Amino acid sequence: MEIEIATIGGYEEVGRQMTAVRAGDDIVVFDMGLNLSQVLVHDNLQTEEMHSLDLIDMGAIPDDRVMSDLEGDVKAIVPTHGHLDHIGAISKLAHRYDAPIVATPFTLELVEEEVHDEGKFVVDNDLVEMEAGETMSIGERCELEFVNVTHSIIDAINPVLHTPEGAVVYGLDKRMDHSPVIGDPIDMKRFREIGREGEGVLCYIEDCTNANKKGRTPSESVARKHLRDVMYSVEDYDGGIVATTFSSHIARVTSLVEFAKDIGREPILLGRSMEKYSGTAERIGAATFPDDLGMYGHRKSVDRAFNRIMEEGKENFLPVVTGHQGEPRAMLTRMGRGETPYDLEDGDKVLFSARVIPEPTNEGQRYQSERLLRMQGARIYDDIHVSGHLRQEGHYEMLDALQPQHVIPAHQDMGGFSGYVDLASGQGYELGRDLHVTANGNVIQLV
Amino acid sequence: MEIEIATIGGYEEVGRQMTAVRAGDDIVVFDMGLNLSQVLVHDNLQTEEMHSLDLIDMGAIPDDRVMSDLEGDVKAIVPTHGHLDHIGAISKLAHRYDAPIVATPFTLELVEEEVHDEGKFVVDNDLVEMEAGETMSIGERCELEFVNVTHSIIDAINPVLHTPEGAVVYGLDKRMDHSPVIGDPIDMKRFREIGREGEGVLCYIEDCTNANKKGRTPSESVARKHLRDVMYSVEDYDGGIVATTFSSHIARVTSLVEFAKDIGREPILLGRSMEKYSGTAERIGAATFPDDLGMYGHRKSVDRAFNRIMEEGKENFLPVVTGHQGEPRAMLTRMGRGETPYDLEDGDKVLFSARVIPEPTNEGQRYQSERLLRMQGARIYDDIHVSGHLRQEGHYEMLDALQPQHVIPAHQDMGGFSGYVDLASGQGYELGRDLHVTANGNVIQLV
Amino acid sequence: MEIEIATIGGYEEVGRQMTAVRAGDDIVVFDMGLNLSQVLVHDNLQTEEMHSLDLIDMGAIPDDRVMSDLEGDVKAIVPTHGHLDHIGAISKLAHRYDAPIVATPFTLELVEEEVHDEGKFVVDNDLVEMEAGETMSIGERCELEFVNVTHSIIDAINPVLHTPEGAVVYGLDKRMDHSPVIGDPIDMKRFREIGREGEGVLCYIEDCTNANKKGRTPSESVARKHLRDVMYSVEDYDGGIVATTFSSHIARVTSLVEFAKDIGREPILLGRSMEKYSGTAERIGAATFPDDLGMYGHRKSVDRAFNRIMEEGKENFLPVVTGHQGEPRAMLTRMGRGETPYDLEDGDKVLFSARVIPEPTNEGQRYQSERLLRMQGARIYDDIHVSGHLRQEGHYEMLDALQPQHVIPAHQDMGGFSGYVDLASGQGYELGRDLHVTANGNVIQLV
Amino acid sequence: MEIEIATIGGYEEVGRQMTAVRAGDDIVVFDMGLNLSQVLVHDNLQTEEMHSLDLIDMGAIPDDRVMSDLEGDVKAIVPTHGHLDHIGAISKLAHRYDAPIVATPFTLELVEEEVHDEGKFVVDNDLVEMEAGETMSIGERCELEFVNVTHSIIDAINPVLHTPEGAVVYGLDKRMDHSPVIGDPIDMKRFREIGREGEGVLCYIEDCTNANKKGRTPSESVARKHLRDVMYSVEDYDGGIVATTFSSHIARVTSLVEFAKDIGREPILLGRSMEKYSGTAERIGAATFPDDLGMYGHRKSVDRAFNRIMEEGKENFLPVVTGHQGEPRAMLTRMGRGETPYDLEDGDKVLFSARVIPEPTNEGQRYQSERLLRMQGARIYDDIHVSGHLRQEGHYEMLDALQPQHVIPAHQDMGGFSGYVDLASGQGYELGRDLHVTANGNVIQLV
Repeated sequence: MEIEIATIGGYEEVGRQMTAVRAGDDIVVFDMGLNLSQVLVHDNLQTEEMHSLDLIDMGAIPDDRVMSDLEGDVKAIVPTHGHLDHIGAISKLAHRYDAPIVATPFTLELVEEEVHDEGKFVVDNDLVEMEAGETMSIGERCELEFVNVTHSIIDAINPVLHTPEGAVVYGLDKRMDHSPVIGDPIDMKRFREIGREGEGVLCYIEDCTNANKKGRTPSESVARKHLRDVMYSVEDYDGGIVATTFSSHIARVTSLVEFAKDIGREPILLGRSMEKYSGTAERIGAATFPDDLGMYGHRKSVDRAFNRIMEEGKENFLPVVTGHQGEPRAMLTRMGRGETPYDLEDGDKVLFSARVIPEPTNEGQRYQSERLLRMQGARIYDDIHVSGHLRQEGHYEMLDALQPQHVIPAHQDMGGFSGYVDLASGQGYELGRDLHVTANGNVIQLV
Repeated sequence: MEIEIATIGGYEEVGRQMTAVRAGDDIVVFDMGLNLSQVLVHDNLQTEEMHSLDLIDMGAIPDDRVMSDLEGDVKAIVPTHGHLDHIGAISKLAHRYDAPIVATPFTLELVEEEVHDEGKFVVDNDLVEMEAGETMSIGERCELEFVNVTHSIIDAINPVLHTPEGAVVYGLDKRMDHSPVIGDPIDMKRFREIGREGEGVLCYIEDCTNANKKGRTPSESVARKHLRDVMYSVEDYDGGIVATTFSSHIARVTSLVEFAKDIGREPILLGRSMEKYSGTAERIGAATFPDDLGMYGHRKSVDRAFNRIMEEGKENFLPVVTGHQGEPRAMLTRMGRGETPYDLEDGDKVLFSARVIPEPTNEGQRYQSERLLRMQGARIYDDIHVSGHLRQEGHYEMLDALQPQHVIPAHQDMGGFSGYVDLASGQGYELGRDLHVTANGNVIQLV
Repeated sequence: MEIEIATIGGYEEVGRQMTAVRAGDDIVVFDMGLNLSQVLVHDNLQTEEMHSLDLIDMGAIPDDRVMSDLEGDVKAIVPTHGHLDHIGAISKLAHRYDAPIVATPFTLELVEEEVHDEGKFVVDNDLVEMEAGETMSIGERCELEFVNVTHSIIDAINPVLHTPEGAVVYGLDKRMDHSPVIGDPIDMKRFREIGREGEGVLCYIEDCTNANKKGRTPSESVARKHLRDVMYSVEDYDGGIVATTFSSHIARVTSLVEFAKDIGREPILLGRSMEKYSGTAERIGAATFPDDLGMYGHRKSVDRAFNRIMEEGKENFLPVVTGHQGEPRAMLTRMGRGETPYDLEDGDKVLFSARVIPEPTNEGQRYQSERLLRMQGARIYDDIHVSGHLRQEGHYEMLDALQPQHVIPAHQDMGGFSGYVDLASGQGYELGRDLHVTANGNVIQLV
Repeated sequence: MEIEIATIGGYEEVGRQMTAVRAGDDIVVFDMGLNLSQVLVHDNLQTEEMHSLDLIDMGAIPDDRVMSDLEGDVKAIVPTHGHLDHIGAISKLAHRYDAPIVATPFTLELVEEEVHDEGKFVVDNDLVEMEAGETMSIGERCELEFVNVTHSIIDAINPVLHTPEGAVVYGLDKRMDHSPVIGDPIDMKRFREIGREGEGVLCYIEDCTNANKKGRTPSESVARKHLRDVMYSVEDYDGGIVATTFSSHIARVTSLVEFAKDIGREPILLGRSMEKYSGTAERIGAATFPDDLGMYGHRKSVDRAFNRIMEEGKENFLPVVTGHQGEPRAMLTRMGRGETPYDLEDGDKVLFSARVIPEPTNEGQRYQSERLLRMQGARIYDDIHVSGHLRQEGHYEMLDALQPQHVIPAHQDMGGFSGYVDLASGQGYELGRDLHVTANGNVIQLV
């Protein structure tokens, strides 16, 4: 059976991921993501109203025209988790394919919301829920399996397409976490089995975000311990404490909510995306929050919450807000500008349970945001975080577990791949033979 | 009563700390440290055989000639903890003063070893043990108190000299740790009392090592959690695992020993200073190690241990060795060079539970060491560590607790002080008035 | 005679410089500058319409309330050169003082334009022109002298106040250039004389912008050589070439204009501040441009120029435009966004004859600007520049020339001063004695 | 005709370059270099006495065993210039091939010295001199041409193998210099011709050392201008001035010698490799030095020169010495340690006309060297230098000139290639199709 991999998007950047695997006549598409940065570089674009081709031209979504080179039918579109760089182009591209979208429950909910907000296209592909550990048939001879992985969002999986020629493992995005705060540990046992059963692994596509970093990415439980240490250290402070983190990082939000209670404060989630992700997680039972946890996204309800906080005393609350990257219109930046009813005062604490995404635009915005907060007297605690992506020793362990015939680094640009190429070369892979450094829009023939 | 502070050493560098406080006719000296870097820049110096004046000339030990400007008698020499930059000059300088050396038990043991190894001077000052929480009289009107603090070595204290004009708090070195792995948390309650009782705090001398860093230094319990995460992640590895850390960091060594047992390996401490610090800690009961824990310092016994490891199987052991900074003659570097009986093989793990001290010499040596280890096939896990020094929010909290009339930044150079000056200025202190940025060899008249 | 120095602004930052020297009853004020960054952190402020106190509160202009502590009369306000951080607060503060503004011709023109644009205050202080090398009496016993220096703007001087107690030399801003492209070399001979005549130098206030940098700042003639090398290297290119630099940097603009001619292109200056500074320089005869050099500031005339360029062929022109820091509304950024009639095409060259001011906001904006330009196909040549500020060896030479009794580092924050403090300490100065690290709003009594 | 490229060494590192091109039955080898860093990581190795295989095993010289996969005869070994990473393995490998070594005069002299110093192998290949612009036949249907290029050593060329299928251009190492200080400008006219004549360029192998750097590398004339600016600025200093640079950088040494005379000092070249390279250049007439220029390499003659300098007055001399990277045994480091008769005093100037090679080992050594020099009172001027390697816009221009069918990045590791891959991709090349990112030991079949 012929096996081909089309590396459609996210092979020259982090963002707008899309990969297709053809096994005989059957094709599975992994991820359809958005590169938000390519949108934001322009002023005032409303992507909801934009056409796919314009977004392709600006490098914001994958250029899926290479799909016409693959001879077969798309049988499933499989987003691996709910981050925008993996699902953000579904509303622009999925309607072109007559195939269901197959994902874990939380991811599927987020896909549904994306599709619902879309203003240009009608996306009515079937939505099929599949949990980690489950499988489904793809055509007559292949099988799709979801292996549980751990990432900075819940319900992340690595899809595996079992073919007669061996398994194709799509390894985006994950860290190797044996003690995550929510959900099960990464299923290394299953990866090791896949590496050894049947024909073994034909191809492994790897998340190289952190491939230039030494060591291993710590567990979320380490970030949680760090966060706990910070929050307990300000337990006696009797003024305002505000926290921010990735809205989609349900485990982190859960820790913030829990530790807020521990130190005698009522947590409140504020900001549109805070409400969206945590609300969704709670609704589908993927996260358990206190019954009385307030989540507010609309401007008016946020202001009402802030007013209540100011009336009842800032010392009784922990607002968890958007704005960890200093985004100009996010809640925390607005607090820094004094545009909300919440008055920051000398000595108030602002906790960034996030790291600045290392790109000059973010760094500039975050710097401005911190300046504004400090001008109000805020004390800043930053980098209370661990990454959601494997570092080198995680890559080493994955290669050891899967023993793939071919590897394809993804989710980076050429400079970002270099650490992975070094690592794989050290393990006996050879560029151009079984180590495929590729680009967007290519097709790699494996069998 | 006249109060003067002589800032003798460590006010233009990290290293060779020494400060004297004169209260009326009585003088207390805090720390007498060594700047090892000033020794190592020269080839092959044996400090044990060197004269004080030569070491002063090369900037290795404090220039204590300014002491003659202080009119009074030294009543006590008080090293705050056992690091060389705080006790390393005692063997060269203490004999000039007719005063006891007063320290906590572990620190005192280390002082005794320093004095014992000295080849040039006979240092027979009395050694007086005093625990955190205890006090002793200094002259007729003053009192010396030890407040428990947390640092990267056990038994660290901040000495406080209570004078009729207020307390002088000597704040070197510490981090604010509410859940240290060994010993009691930092005694913030006592600091707050000192800030409010009697005349309050006349002067606070602060450890500015990390004063340019945002946020707060995490607790040792966070480093422990991180270390645990790394070690459990390699639990199934059936080859060699080697760890290195600061020999004097008893809490970290304890964690390494404990987690080694957890993952089914026998820990062994190897290297001269490993044996020295851990042996001392165990002997005086400051740390509890398993009865059968091997500690070997002499070359022959180290080689014997390595041979046993190779015979019984590397997969059964965790050697904890010296060499975390890539020091050319330390154990780990020698392992990298293949100069020990321990054979590193492809896939063997080397854990650096330490951070490179950010100075080009260290960075160069550490880089070389890692290169050698990688050439043997080693996989490297680094930065499993937290600092022992306060960051900005710790400084903020200390100012809030003590509310000192005067502050003196120490333990850095001018660039290193800048973050502290910014912080203190923001809290209302003013350069030249009550915020004293000074240099080695000055005397500051407070009253 | 009592001599006091009030360090009013620019002693905790680069920006909003202001220093007053009182000699007996006579006061001279050096610089009244604006910290533009403190304005831009807020959205949409129009400083022209703002009140001084609001600008003081936001840290944008010097807080001159400390002037009331000085017992004497202001006899002159002396801006050293025409950069906004030295003249930008004159329109907000000068009217409070009954004293003339004394400056070199180019600086005075720029002051006049500032005053003219001011919308809130009427500033009608006398404007007195004085050239480098000239002097004027201040009160009965003092004399003000202008010593020629070299900086990134023409007509820069260092004012010296000769008092019976020695000279006070105000050393902001300069580099030591023996072969500037426009104007005379720095007058080191005069500095050396001042250091040796009469009572010598009582006090030297130094520009520490680059005090943490090793070596010496190259001459503008080195930047010119570099620029020439770049421009000649693209001589054969037959498409668009665009250059940007600091609008106020007349020497650089002159070189750009000259080399444009050399490679067969017509230079055109575009953008409001390009027109302003070069137009002013030409009008007063401080710079000589080709008779037919176009300078356009208003949107309409700029667009007309661009249209002409597009009609006659981009290959015949070198537009020199604003936007070297990636300012969002500057000409080059607008070109990147495709908002001007000038079409950038694949292979077109963009020359940044400037360095990014190292602050995250600038770095973020510049990065965005370059991204936009590259998206149009532009090739980028950056860092064709040398700084206008002394590095360490320049500071060393100034100390050697002036041999001042007291030195006061300025034009930086505490971290920025550190290199200077190290240098001065190495030359025998002592913090708190004759080396005065101070802050905004202090008064230093020298005699 | 079959054309193959064997990428033997220097495709995973900077160093130990070696590439073979097979055209039909004829093979030409370009470069046989040494990676000195792989030698120095070990203690006390004497490469002169070592066997090739041991040096191959440690990654110090190219692993030429892949040559047996090429079916043909080596007709020429062609080192491009005299740097060790291009000629340093000739003495270990060339004797295995029955082929002449073809090089420019200066390169050939240096090869001869290498061969002469070799202690293990007898290398008696013919040495054939060929100048830039000349050609020689290779087999019956190919021709080897030398195109003049500009680099940080004189007499550098880019060899071109003209085959019936097009030209193979070996582009290591060069910068695009239109006004070099010695020798002719880079022959861009010839490159453009080669790109357009006959079959055009089949393959271009490019020097990617600086491929991640923006803009263009300045001309040596810019470094010369910078150096002149520094040296003239210390013209009046009446103490010691010492300079260091790359010994092989004859153009720079020439400028140092010339400017020394200009400021009234006698230049003297000191150190073994200073004597070697400059002596060789002078002997073959490639550089013209003053008749009385002293060059001393042996310890005794160096000491004699130093003694003369001390007797006649340091203010009359400019020693140009080895040690620009802080090498522990080089002359300048020994001067810092006080191991030479030359006494450094307060205020003496040390000029580094070189940049630190950015690798932690060098950075550590250089830092130590500067510390030692500063401890003697030296004032340091560093980075008076420009690189010898193309930056991105040089690569862009080369692609534009040659329009090659295939490109192969070389002289870097994977991370170092990334900037080149981005650039080439932007110009329409595609990874795996006509853009070949490869590794040591591969063979690429072009026709």
